[in-house]
Amino acid sequence: MTVSGDSNLTSTADAIPNGVKPSWEELGAKKRRDLQASIPREWRIPESLLPPPTQDDVTGWPEESGWFTKEELAITNLTAGELLSKMAAGELKSEDVTRSFCKRASAAHQLTNCLSEIFFDRAMAMARERDQYFAQTGKPVGPLHGLPISLKDNINVKDVDSTVGMAIHVGDPAKADATLAQMLAEAGAVFYVKTNVPTAMMIAETVNNVFGRTLNPRNRQTTSGGSSGGESALIVMKGSPIGVGSDIGGSLRIPAAATGIFALRPSFGRFPVRNCRSGMAGQEAIASVNGPLAPTLDDIKLYTKAVIESQPWLRDAKCLPIPWREAALPQKLRIGVMWHDGMVKPTAPVARALKHTVARLKAAGHEIVEWDHSDQAEGYMLMNRMFLADGGKTIKSQLEPTDEPMRLEMEPYSVARELGTAEMWKLHLERSEFQNRHLDRWIKAGLDALLLPTMPFNTVRSGTFKHVGYTGVYNVVDYAAVSFPTGLKVDKDIDIECPDYTPLSIDCKAIHETYEPDLMHGLPISLQLVARRLEEEKVLQMTGRVLEALAA
Amino acid sequence: MTVSGDSNLTSTADAIPNGVKPSWEELGAKKRRDLQASIPREWRIPESLLPPPTQDDVTGWPEESGWFTKEELAITNLTAGELLSKMAAGELKSEDVTRSFCKRASAAHQLTNCLSEIFFDRAMAMARERDQYFAQTGKPVGPLHGLPISLKDNINVKDVDSTVGMAIHVGDPAKADATLAQMLAEAGAVFYVKTNVPTAMMIAETVNNVFGRTLNPRNRQTTSGGSSGGESALIVMKGSPIGVGSDIGGSLRIPAAATGIFALRPSFGRFPVRNCRSGMAGQEAIASVNGPLAPTLDDIKLYTKAVIESQPWLRDAKCLPIPWREAALPQKLRIGVMWHDGMVKPTAPVARALKHTVARLKAAGHEIVEWDHSDQAEGYMLMNRMFLADGGKTIKSQLEPTDEPMRLEMEPYSVARELGTAEMWKLHLERSEFQNRHLDRWIKAGLDALLLPTMPFNTVRSGTFKHVGYTGVYNVVDYAAVSFPTGLKVDKDIDIECPDYTPLSIDCKAIHETYEPDLMHGLPISLQLVARRLEEEKVLQMTGRVLEALAA
Repeated sequence: MTVSGDSNLTSTADAIPNGVKPSWEELGAKKRRDLQASIPREWRIPESLLPPPTQDDVTGWPEESGWFTKEELAITNLTAGELLSKMAAGELKSEDVTRSFCKRASAAHQLTNCLSEIFFDRAMAMARERDQYFAQTGKPVGPLHGLPISLKDNINVKDVDSTVGMAIHVGDPAKADATLAQMLAEAGAVFYVKTNVPTAMMIAETVNNVFGRTLNPRNRQTTSGGSSGGESALIVMKGSPIGVGSDIGGSLRIPAAATGIFALRPSFGRFPVRNCRSGMAGQEAIASVNGPLAPTLDDIKLYTKAVIESQPWLRDAKCLPIPWREAALPQKLRIGVMWHDGMVKPTAPVARALKHTVARLKAAGHEIVEWDHSDQAEGYMLMNRMFLADGGKTIKSQLEPTDEPMRLEMEPYSVARELGTAEMWKLHLERSEFQNRHLDRWIKAGLDALLLPTMPFNTVRSGTFKHVGYTGVYNVVDYAAVSFPTGLKVDKDIDIECPDYTPLSIDCKAIHETYEPDLMHGLPISLQLVARRLEEEKVLQMTGRVLEALAA
Repeated sequence: MTVSGDSNLTSTADAIPNGVKPSWEELGAKKRRDLQASIPREWRIPESLLPPPTQDDVTGWPEESGWFTKEELAITNLTAGELLSKMAAGELKSEDVTRSFCKRASAAHQLTNCLSEIFFDRAMAMARERDQYFAQTGKPVGPLHGLPISLKDNINVKDVDSTVGMAIHVGDPAKADATLAQMLAEAGAVFYVKTNVPTAMMIAETVNNVFGRTLNPRNRQTTSGGSSGGESALIVMKGSPIGVGSDIGGSLRIPAAATGIFALRPSFGRFPVRNCRSGMAGQEAIASVNGPLAPTLDDIKLYTKAVIESQPWLRDAKCLPIPWREAALPQKLRIGVMWHDGMVKPTAPVARALKHTVARLKAAGHEIVEWDHSDQAEGYMLMNRMFLADGGKTIKSQLEPTDEPMRLEMEPYSVARELGTAEMWKLHLERSEFQNRHLDRWIKAGLDALLLPTMPFNTVRSGTFKHVGYTGVYNVVDYAAVSFPTGLKVDKDIDIECPDYTPLSIDCKAIHETYEPDLMHGLPISLQLVARRLEEEKVLQMTGRVLEALAA
């Protein structure tokens, strides 16, 4: 097994001759060579130190390999909040922090193929600027002073490609930083890598024809999820303290759940989206958003507050002038629980985690009410229809010029029929009616939050992901949602398929038939907490309450 | 001249035989008969009292005709704020207030053809309920206790048609009140009439094949504007203290300007839009909003606050959870002025009002900066392209079943080409880039507000309206905007075409060639004040400052 996981991507093409239209294979090969070359020689792991390809869990490698100094490990084991405190207190320099994360990210990439762009020189220059500012003024640059932040591939960084996994975009560097990147940099952040995504960011695993597949560091036979799966892999390897991903159908929450970290999917309008690359640019019926992934809830909150307090509505016309507002939570939350979505039942570990969490919430005095799944299938269908409304033309137009094949996972885009605008308007109406009915139900039920699986499984063997219905419906209604690790791990001895399991659908059957307790053993189990539209503060605070209940 | 203004609409067809598909003419004739019949006999103005068709200004008729009692005049001459105070103090009963407005609205309709639906029985029942509640509890029902509010035809009222000027919708009553209507009713409002609109609400005058044309009460040879021109005519006749219209390209501001009253076009998401009828349902690239029209700014503010404080985001998924926020205005406002939009220069009276207002603002200590019109043409083109993106299919599908002809004013919808969804996505991108560039310019200029004409003219002779560019660009960027009367009137002796006038375009030439100082003499001149997206509170407060400067 190669690290890229896709053996057909490992050949090294020769330089592309001038004047000849390069093929997707040539462009991809060039891009992979360039990426490899951008890792400084001293940070290329010697063959002898590399874990064998058959080693599933590589998260322990940085500690065990002896390849890192004690100081590098100490720094990269800190949370974003801890790093910021120490840098703001002058106890750590951004240069040292950044160098340590560059090195650990290099390792993470060599073990999981999680990066798409590496620009350590720029990073070190940014870090030194921060240090210089601090040395001169005694003050941090801003709330993210000196902090390395990893960025999903679609977030433009000046002079760096944003391929979003398609060969056509190789060698087409961004002319300017994305608005979000500008604002993070002004708040003090340091950029050093961009992370891998699936083709056009429209697959729930992270695999594409340019960079190949990103592996889950907790078990490299499984997926780190998608489309922000480069981020989740990097963060779990502690190659990044916090990263930015994006979510149009679950692309933040799925990778977070697959690897056992936190992610916030904000409602549209809270974080800037300007000057990011989209796989389906101009598609607005279901809005793509970006948001943070991190190992701790506190760091997610810290990032969210920093971005909102920098007033993105003055920089991006899509942003709403809503300041950061601490939510006044009731003592006792009223939480709906959805045991399954009527399409695919959760596998044994997820069902157990949900049951356990509900029991702990009840024990903590919260009120739990059953939430009917009856509208989930309609919401999920609407999502798929909106994604496919252009008949896949926008994606095809990015593949065809380089003869790049449509990946099998994206088959629906090959066969979709384009809607005319009049039909699209009718689809908008259906979606708006769905949104209103969902709101009515929510208000009638008096919910503070909804608790449900993030995915039907904890993760899956790479290449077998099915069903993004648990996340996608909340993109359709544009609700604020968090995926959080419950602290529970899959236990092959107790997480055994229920003997009276009856499938709800073909996908349900396939997922349950391919559930492998042995493969999943020890992997984290996550759940999703959802609040209403634009209730980012509230969903973060409520997730805190859920964690308290789980820890009690 | 008939009141309907369209002589081909005055014939009375016989009852439509069962089983035969009725034509648009038959449906329209039936609808007009029904509307006429819904005016109580005692409120039909005797022929002898009617002003002659040649009388242009009928605003004085209620006071001069002797047809109203002193009490009816006293009530209907009060503002919404005054009426609410008196009803909340028990000094007036909603029943008396409502009856007076029903009568005056009946008169307004007979003089200007401003209504589309009349339901006085329901109104009187609602009014009595309010009075009963007050008698029993000593308290008003809510902030709009007992207040008659007129509604534009597209705002659904249970059991009442929402034809939006198209024959196909005759005899298809709404199954439920629009969410906005529900909320207004819960706040204490009383509904009694709906007001006329142009076909599909997509003409800037108020004329359609069902009800014919609404006339401007200040000069019945001119238009009261559109698409909320039934509202503006009714309000100017004091047949309504406050009304609700809608705006997708200027449809609130244009009627307000044409008749010299106030209107707020809010940004999308502030007021509920759920369960209203649209002429182009599902069109989302440029959002339709609704908002108030009234003779005073205070009443506009009162309505806006009442709606927002009733938390529409709990009832309509499109609404944003942004509470009413008083704006903290700087002492000295920085106001951009756009003298013309680069496409059509304002006629002499509008140019004079703008100059005068700028001078008064400067005298009041505000800072005035020139605002370049260079991006107006692009914004206006984008608006038109978005309206026409379905090739007019949605409108045609509402005309063809009854063989209703497309009105000449809507010719572009006849000839438009439908975009596929992939093309539409590209158009979205163009629009978003425009929005961002506009925001950048605004922020760079440090504007609090932008002052400009609402229309190139004060109003026009019916049937000759051209150019909604001054308003439409602010729909494209979704900014909060007010049209306000400056207090100035057209003066035929001073508002003479500038001798060195050179046209900017064919429309500009046509508008200036057809400007008739004699016809316009004495009519009010309005302007537009624009603030950023979702700055409704701020734009209302700033309009107050402008009025102060004008009054000083």
